Amino acid sequence: MDITIAIDAMGGDHGPHVTVPAALRALKEDEQLNIVLVGLEDTIQAELKSHKATTSPRLRIHHASEVVLMDESPQSAMKNKKDSSMRVAINLTKSGEANACVSAGNTGALMATARFVLKTLPGIERPAIASALPSEKGSTYMLDLGANADCTAEQLLQFAVMGAMLVSCVEHKPNPSIGLLNIGSEDIKGNEVVKRTGELLRESHLNFYGNIEGDDIFKGTTDLVVCDGFVGNVALKTTEGLAHMMGKFLTQEFKKNWLSKLMALCAMPVLKAFKKRLDPRRYNGASFLGLRGVVVKSHGGADAFAFYHAIHVAIEEARNGVLRRITEQLEIEHIQKDTTIAPVTAEN
Amino acid sequence: MDITIAIDAMGGDHGPHVTVPAALRALKEDEQLNIVLVGLEDTIQAELKSHKATTSPRLRIHHASEVVLMDESPQSAMKNKKDSSMRVAINLTKSGEANACVSAGNTGALMATARFVLKTLPGIERPAIASALPSEKGSTYMLDLGANADCTAEQLLQFAVMGAMLVSCVEHKPNPSIGLLNIGSEDIKGNEVVKRTGELLRESHLNFYGNIEGDDIFKGTTDLVVCDGFVGNVALKTTEGLAHMMGKFLTQEFKKNWLSKLMALCAMPVLKAFKKRLDPRRYNGASFLGLRGVVVKSHGGADAFAFYHAIHVAIEEARNGVLRRITEQLEIEHIQKDTTIAPVTAEN
Repeated sequence: MDITIAIDAMGGDHGPHVTVPAALRALKEDEQLNIVLVGLEDTIQAELKSHKATTSPRLRIHHASEVVLMDESPQSAMKNKKDSSMRVAINLTKSGEANACVSAGNTGALMATARFVLKTLPGIERPAIASALPSEKGSTYMLDLGANADCTAEQLLQFAVMGAMLVSCVEHKPNPSIGLLNIGSEDIKGNEVVKRTGELLRESHLNFYGNIEGDDIFKGTTDLVVCDGFVGNVALKTTEGLAHMMGKFLTQEFKKNWLSKLMALCAMPVLKAFKKRLDPRRYNGASFLGLRGVVVKSHGGADAFAFYHAIHVAIEEARNGVLRRITEQLEIEHIQKDTTIAPVTAEN
Repeated sequence: MDITIAIDAMGGDHGPHVTVPAALRALKEDEQLNIVLVGLEDTIQAELKSHKATTSPRLRIHHASEVVLMDESPQSAMKNKKDSSMRVAINLTKSGEANACVSAGNTGALMATARFVLKTLPGIERPAIASALPSEKGSTYMLDLGANADCTAEQLLQFAVMGAMLVSCVEHKPNPSIGLLNIGSEDIKGNEVVKRTGELLRESHLNFYGNIEGDDIFKGTTDLVVCDGFVGNVALKTTEGLAHMMGKFLTQEFKKNWLSKLMALCAMPVLKAFKKRLDPRRYNGASFLGLRGVVVKSHGGADAFAFYHAIHVAIEEARNGVLRRITEQLEIEHIQKDTTIAPVTAEN
């Protein structure tokens, strides 16, 4: 199935130096993929040239005259940069010229703009951010990772629906298992919101496993982990901090003296294989779920390899109709409060 | 200063096999320490004998006829086991015969019993669980780690007072820095409770650093991290899960083939040094804070080395008057709602 992805070519710490080679790689590996590079035409052309590439029917440039800065406030981006590469990429997704968009731009501005331009799906009160994490069994998806600090049980149920459909589309798992992040496995555990969410999930048609605890994320106990954005963000950042500390300590121990340095040399191939296995670049690409369009956020500091992975997530979501799947599942769960708004367009 | 610690000798997965040798080590290393081993006298005597040790003025046995099981409900332990080693150890702390107690028994029963027997300090609405974690700068203390799933801003402020005094006593830091766990550094970030807690902490006399994020825990940005028990428990368990996965992956990579096994052999001394640095046994000993007595909870699966560390935490808390320090600081912060209850007894 032919898919067109709009890429905010200027977003992220490295802009076209990263987004352009990533796009070229994605085009090479997927013959049914078209890409629209959105941003300053001259800059993008120059980057293409440095890779000995040119535009083609499958690779277009869509000029956008402005760039949202990485530390720019969402308000400023929304108000002052209506022709930013970020906003135009989202516009293309809304108009149907693209099936999805990918940006490494600043998270706040991307979420605010995407929400403003695309609006939320019928039945979804708030969009959420989902991503894959490595686990002992492969990968575990988790949401919300920081879009919503305060959530109701109904919103967490909506997150569960959206996350399950995401896993279904990206991992090709038809009925992914869902864990509710809690502080104990018994139904009576947790705060009031989580207890009520457990009730809603047990009553739903989703594949609800039950409560899980923090260590289950990396054990891979369930395919999906549902939590509010406060808890999800803390858990994610905490693991980043621990991984950083462990990496630092390991390096320090290996650099302690000439003997340990020699040992490091001996063990290098294994250490590299270990590092590769946990390589966060392979998990790059957070999905903004609940919008009337597919939006994938790459890490701002992503390199071309990592950004390519974010493009891949967008392709899978678009190709496997994540928006249609979410809408259908919301109907099954009778979550369809906002019925006055037109259904999702056909391209998804 | 002479200190007496009551040890629930029967608690934990291994009972006296662990608690007795840990007690003997603690006595050897601290000449001003007295220990009361609480539990089945014959069993404890037999264990002492196997270590060629005997009771002495510094090492007494206090017989208790019952044992709280590791999976026993708090209700059952409270109702049916009034002569349990756990409860009697807490009783000795209440009566002043001991300055603190240590148990590796089940967390729920220990918290319920300690709360029932000792009651909370004036001004403290709920006790919290605090522990040290390794960090890039040494160690970071964190609370609450799971006693309270729902917390108010006022309770989080109380946790900050208790945690700061704990760090002050155990780490000998006079004015420890406090970070409020949040999902961004700006004051406007977070959920409503956390935003309000930030206000209270800014108005307090504590050394408030500001908001911190999950990765700051292991960076060691602040001496103490304050959060509700839901977030704290999730963060703690998540790090346990990640550490387990990383350890497993590293082992798998080193065991892949004969060459990688050879590399593992070469690198073994460094890998051991690395493992030692993160050894969770060195951080064993969670403090139950906010009670009218010092209670330290050891991990149930602790070995003698780990349990010894939990005893050490109890000694430091008791010797440096953590209860008095908390009470004084609560007064400074004008948190003294419950003034009808008598002040903390002199031994602390």
